[in-house]
Amino acid sequence: MTCGAQGARSTMSRSLAQFLFAPRSVAIVGQSDDVTKTAGRPLKYLRQSGYAGRIYPINPRRKEVLGERAYPSLSALPDVPEHVYIVTPTEAAMEAVAECGKLGVKVATVLANGFAEAGPEGEAREARLRDICARTGLRIIGPSSLGIADLRSKAMLTANAAFDEPDLPTGRFLVASHSGSMIGALLSRGKARGIGYAGLVSVGNEVDLSLGEICEATLDDPGIDGYMLFLETLRHGDALRRFAQAAAAANKPVLAYKLGRTEAARELAVSHTGALAGEDDIAEAFLADCGIARVDTLDGLIEGLPLLKRVPRMASGGRKPTVAVVTTTAGGATMVVDPLASRGVAIQAPSTETLARLRSATGIAVAPARLIDLTVAGAQYAAMRAALDVLVNAPEYDLIVAVVGSSARFLPERAVQPIIDCASADKPIAAFLVPEAPQALAALSAAGVPNFRTPEACADAVAAALRRRTPRAVTSPIRRHATHFTNGRVLDELEAYALLDRIGITRTPAFAVDAGVTSAPALPFPYPVAAKALAADIPHKTEAGGVELGVRDGDALLAAIARIAANVGKHGRHLERVLVQPMIAALGEILVGYRVDRDVGPLVMLAAGGVLAEIYRDRSLRLAPVDLATAREMINEVRGLAALAGYRNKPSGDLDALARTIVALSQLPTADESVAEAEINPLMVLAPGRGVIAVDALVRLR
Amino acid sequence: MTCGAQGARSTMSRSLAQFLFAPRSVAIVGQSDDVTKTAGRPLKYLRQSGYAGRIYPINPRRKEVLGERAYPSLSALPDVPEHVYIVTPTEAAMEAVAECGKLGVKVATVLANGFAEAGPEGEAREARLRDICARTGLRIIGPSSLGIADLRSKAMLTANAAFDEPDLPTGRFLVASHSGSMIGALLSRGKARGIGYAGLVSVGNEVDLSLGEICEATLDDPGIDGYMLFLETLRHGDALRRFAQAAAAANKPVLAYKLGRTEAARELAVSHTGALAGEDDIAEAFLADCGIARVDTLDGLIEGLPLLKRVPRMASGGRKPTVAVVTTTAGGATMVVDPLASRGVAIQAPSTETLARLRSATGIAVAPARLIDLTVAGAQYAAMRAALDVLVNAPEYDLIVAVVGSSARFLPERAVQPIIDCASADKPIAAFLVPEAPQALAALSAAGVPNFRTPEACADAVAAALRRRTPRAVTSPIRRHATHFTNGRVLDELEAYALLDRIGITRTPAFAVDAGVTSAPALPFPYPVAAKALAADIPHKTEAGGVELGVRDGDALLAAIARIAANVGKHGRHLERVLVQPMIAALGEILVGYRVDRDVGPLVMLAAGGVLAEIYRDRSLRLAPVDLATAREMINEVRGLAALAGYRNKPSGDLDALARTIVALSQLPTADESVAEAEINPLMVLAPGRGVIAVDALVRLR
Repeated sequence: MTCGAQGARSTMSRSLAQFLFAPRSVAIVGQSDDVTKTAGRPLKYLRQSGYAGRIYPINPRRKEVLGERAYPSLSALPDVPEHVYIVTPTEAAMEAVAECGKLGVKVATVLANGFAEAGPEGEAREARLRDICARTGLRIIGPSSLGIADLRSKAMLTANAAFDEPDLPTGRFLVASHSGSMIGALLSRGKARGIGYAGLVSVGNEVDLSLGEICEATLDDPGIDGYMLFLETLRHGDALRRFAQAAAAANKPVLAYKLGRTEAARELAVSHTGALAGEDDIAEAFLADCGIARVDTLDGLIEGLPLLKRVPRMASGGRKPTVAVVTTTAGGATMVVDPLASRGVAIQAPSTETLARLRSATGIAVAPARLIDLTVAGAQYAAMRAALDVLVNAPEYDLIVAVVGSSARFLPERAVQPIIDCASADKPIAAFLVPEAPQALAALSAAGVPNFRTPEACADAVAAALRRRTPRAVTSPIRRHATHFTNGRVLDELEAYALLDRIGITRTPAFAVDAGVTSAPALPFPYPVAAKALAADIPHKTEAGGVELGVRDGDALLAAIARIAANVGKHGRHLERVLVQPMIAALGEILVGYRVDRDVGPLVMLAAGGVLAEIYRDRSLRLAPVDLATAREMINEVRGLAALAGYRNKPSGDLDALARTIVALSQLPTADESVAEAEINPLMVLAPGRGVIAVDALVRLR
Repeated sequence: MTCGAQGARSTMSRSLAQFLFAPRSVAIVGQSDDVTKTAGRPLKYLRQSGYAGRIYPINPRRKEVLGERAYPSLSALPDVPEHVYIVTPTEAAMEAVAECGKLGVKVATVLANGFAEAGPEGEAREARLRDICARTGLRIIGPSSLGIADLRSKAMLTANAAFDEPDLPTGRFLVASHSGSMIGALLSRGKARGIGYAGLVSVGNEVDLSLGEICEATLDDPGIDGYMLFLETLRHGDALRRFAQAAAAANKPVLAYKLGRTEAARELAVSHTGALAGEDDIAEAFLADCGIARVDTLDGLIEGLPLLKRVPRMASGGRKPTVAVVTTTAGGATMVVDPLASRGVAIQAPSTETLARLRSATGIAVAPARLIDLTVAGAQYAAMRAALDVLVNAPEYDLIVAVVGSSARFLPERAVQPIIDCASADKPIAAFLVPEAPQALAALSAAGVPNFRTPEACADAVAAALRRRTPRAVTSPIRRHATHFTNGRVLDELEAYALLDRIGITRTPAFAVDAGVTSAPALPFPYPVAAKALAADIPHKTEAGGVELGVRDGDALLAAIARIAANVGKHGRHLERVLVQPMIAALGEILVGYRVDRDVGPLVMLAAGGVLAEIYRDRSLRLAPVDLATAREMINEVRGLAALAGYRNKPSGDLDALARTIVALSQLPTADESVAEAEINPLMVLAPGRGVIAVDALVRLR
């Protein structure tokens, strides 16, 4: 045993990743003598797995725990452990963290709850933890962390009951999870299908070390090939983004399952972790922008990384990737086609050339259909092999999905072996086996062929892999996102127009008139006009009776102004000015918006206009700024905009001008850092070449 | 061995189900001596499983196959087998079927393909098969059937490679599938999780016996408790519906997975089975109306029936069922909440009373949230048991989902056992275990607790079970649906209005004017008016320049009529008459439609009006006729109609009148059997009490 001083010296050159995942010495504060208790587990698991470092159980009430010497406190130890797992209740945990800081412990992982999720008192505790970190250099995982486990170093610093497991397979992926239960689920579910991990970490409340920071610390680890993330929130989005960019640079794929597709689930994340949950399409846009692939199914998370490793990232604005589905069973394969198509993946029939090659190579009269169906041949090696050889060389395909029917169970040499024999092709092949076929799946895994147990997981992972983009370099100067952005000053409409003028967005001419005017003003544009209350504190002008449209002449304008002033007056406000602007005839009305989100920073949004689009929540979001290609992608994603793109022979709108406007608005973080939120609603879309015109705008400063 | 005459006599009292699933004697026509070939399998599987009846292998080219005597033909057999499996190629199969008919065989199952899916020649073959059935009383399964297997009688008449399996567990569910591969997949996947079947049948092209008919034949079988259907089409919808109604009456649940959620997948069903695939929401409406629960995931199909057995059918128009989610792990449980909520299941926080009881029974300060989260207690028997006892007695819940975290793997006595101990409660409990926990799942199954391996399958099955309705007695007189319905005569608009008048739907006043009119006609209603070409063969009047709206006076009307006649004339048509009707100011425009679908019969449809609603495909469908409660459900299902139901303080429309109009239109099958299709677009919705008014209608006869 080295003495404390030596221990301290030798840690100087060691990295955070080593303190986290491969500590030379660990202490368990609060280790129980009773293995049926949560606090009894860490020592048991450490011994069971054969951890080779020094282990210090700490329990002031016992001389021995689980047959080993127990120490009364951290300061009573012969040296300073590198990593301390604190499994005591909340108040004792606070004391133990303070002691860790005092002694120079590198990392403390905290199990206790009672922090941010427990209201103001808990938030105060978190502040104290952060203060200890800042003063002493201690790094904390948690609180509410079910621990961290490295299956290579056998540092099983976890109280998760699912780790009571012999013969845990070691693998090359790291699991990081907001949920502590999930590290146990991914461990045991992985083991059941022969999937091992390098390590798993339950990050808890992320009071100090965030999930992104922990993962980033391991990027140099040559034993880690990829990352599986289980996310409940996007808290610490900056760190996650930094990690994702570095992971992409290191060519290590990152796959995430994020809770909160639905409002019901997001509500739970709020009550459970004390974090605020954003809207799901913001999370979607953020993860996509970071180049993190997102799956929707648990099995997709468990089985998806090998596919991600094989599928290159798609260039933004490039050709939509296409998939070939080849099969020995049409019914089974269609089970994959349905969820693939519903995720927007293009499943394409072979080109004339490819079809001819398929027919000549297989000897089968393959139909010119989306599904390359070899059923008539039965499951035969030669036919499947020949078809795969043609498909991996067919230029129209980016990925091949091979679906094998009943033969996969007992006769894998027929239609599974050809997939294995094509594993080294440049083009990725994903395999789904229709029957239960564990041996064939294991053989596919051993050969490096991504394979899936359910059609849904297969489609989920394929869609996630094909959607994955290269993360963008973050150009936005807005890094830290305060929560009080919602309190900033709202500009009046003329001020908002001035902002649009500065950033190059065309807006309607507008003329301010005194609300007390008694004779019709001379306008710089012809009638009919719109008249609107001009005041920053009336954001919902229409609802307040502050808007009159289609005003036909001077007399009507005077009457309209009087009505508007009276309506606004009902709310106890004295209206100073009315804004008059020409009526704009347009092909359609849409909404573009910008806002600085608390979690992910500046965002740009595009939506179809009107009540229906709002009801259908038909919108596209991106992290700002965006380029023209991305703006065009956004236009394609808003389904309702089909009505402005030649749908049913309707006249098209100037979508080029719309794309330029989206780009201009998205550059707000560079143009004007003071803007927290800007919404142009409606933006009128004119005929091609005639542009788009903002006829109302709402801007709030930070 | 009995002689032929005895055999024939003794079959007199036997049922179709027995000939199908428990034949006393079987023949395999085309049985190969090579077990590596498809045609070598049936005899092998029959012997391997220990089938106790007489087996006659037939192979004209060999004296022996697989060490057994082979017969040269069916007529050379010592008696007439009850069930013949024909595994020869197409032409030989046609001959064998003819011989079956001649000999008085009860059932022939045909493996060969080359029928409807192979074009006109194949269709002619199918016609010959149907003719043989009609003349001889032979019943046929297939063609393109991978066979039929009964795991109790061991009649393994299948060539599916996945049946090469020892120790197949016997169960109480029957599997019927359009896909032959899927019977192997469900067999092997079931076996891997301890789920056995009574039998499985691959119904192939259904040239004679349809899937519905086969299932219906087994409804008296006391060994069958429920049905798992794998559907590629709704061919023979009548038989399926009849079966579903009888199954509901017999209290035997029916669970279906139907391919074709997406157009890409429906396209495949067309090319693969030769069947035409309808739109998916029609299939959805049909299955719902039949009381067949539909799942979206393969695991949901495999694991869902035990839950279906426990969940009572919901009354149409009743209270929306609500679910409690109770858990020892918030993150894991949220994985179920997300897919539940995205399927529209209401996950409800406990009532004040229930919350108080939960807190007092568990001793935990349970939060007043949607998720009943016991995490703080750790996984403890007492807390989970007490919570479940409260929840199964809480009147606000229809179903409990219990989600257990890592403890489920090695400590099932903690939080899984309490679920088992509540299994006999009146209220259904569905269990999802977050880690891999096969023992705990088996214990749950043994105790009759529906349990699920993935959060997605759990949510899928729960949603399907809660949506399930009591099938309606079919009141429509339209039973058989001809495919030529699309060729019937189109009524002109006045004739269509006369039909609306007959069925009690309010329509606009309308006045027909000669297209050659030279002076303004005296109208029975004031200006402004709409003028429309009145001719049955111009269905898309607007596109043809045949509509003018907002015509202000007599002169404008004359000009409008002239323009309309000229526009219509450009298409080479001489226009006789123009229809004039008043302009109707309304709160909104919607679309209601009726049509007799080829697969499922009369349907009624409701959709929001306008291009956006069309793009979003926002519509609700039901089998016609519907009652008022169902019409109101339909109104609630069309998201865009929220704009007429007080959304954002907009004025509400007369939704009661709308519901009555839907009911009236849906009664067309009784009112007028001659109508194939009727569409009112738009139907103008006025303020409450002021009704709805049809301002255009398109009707096509059969």
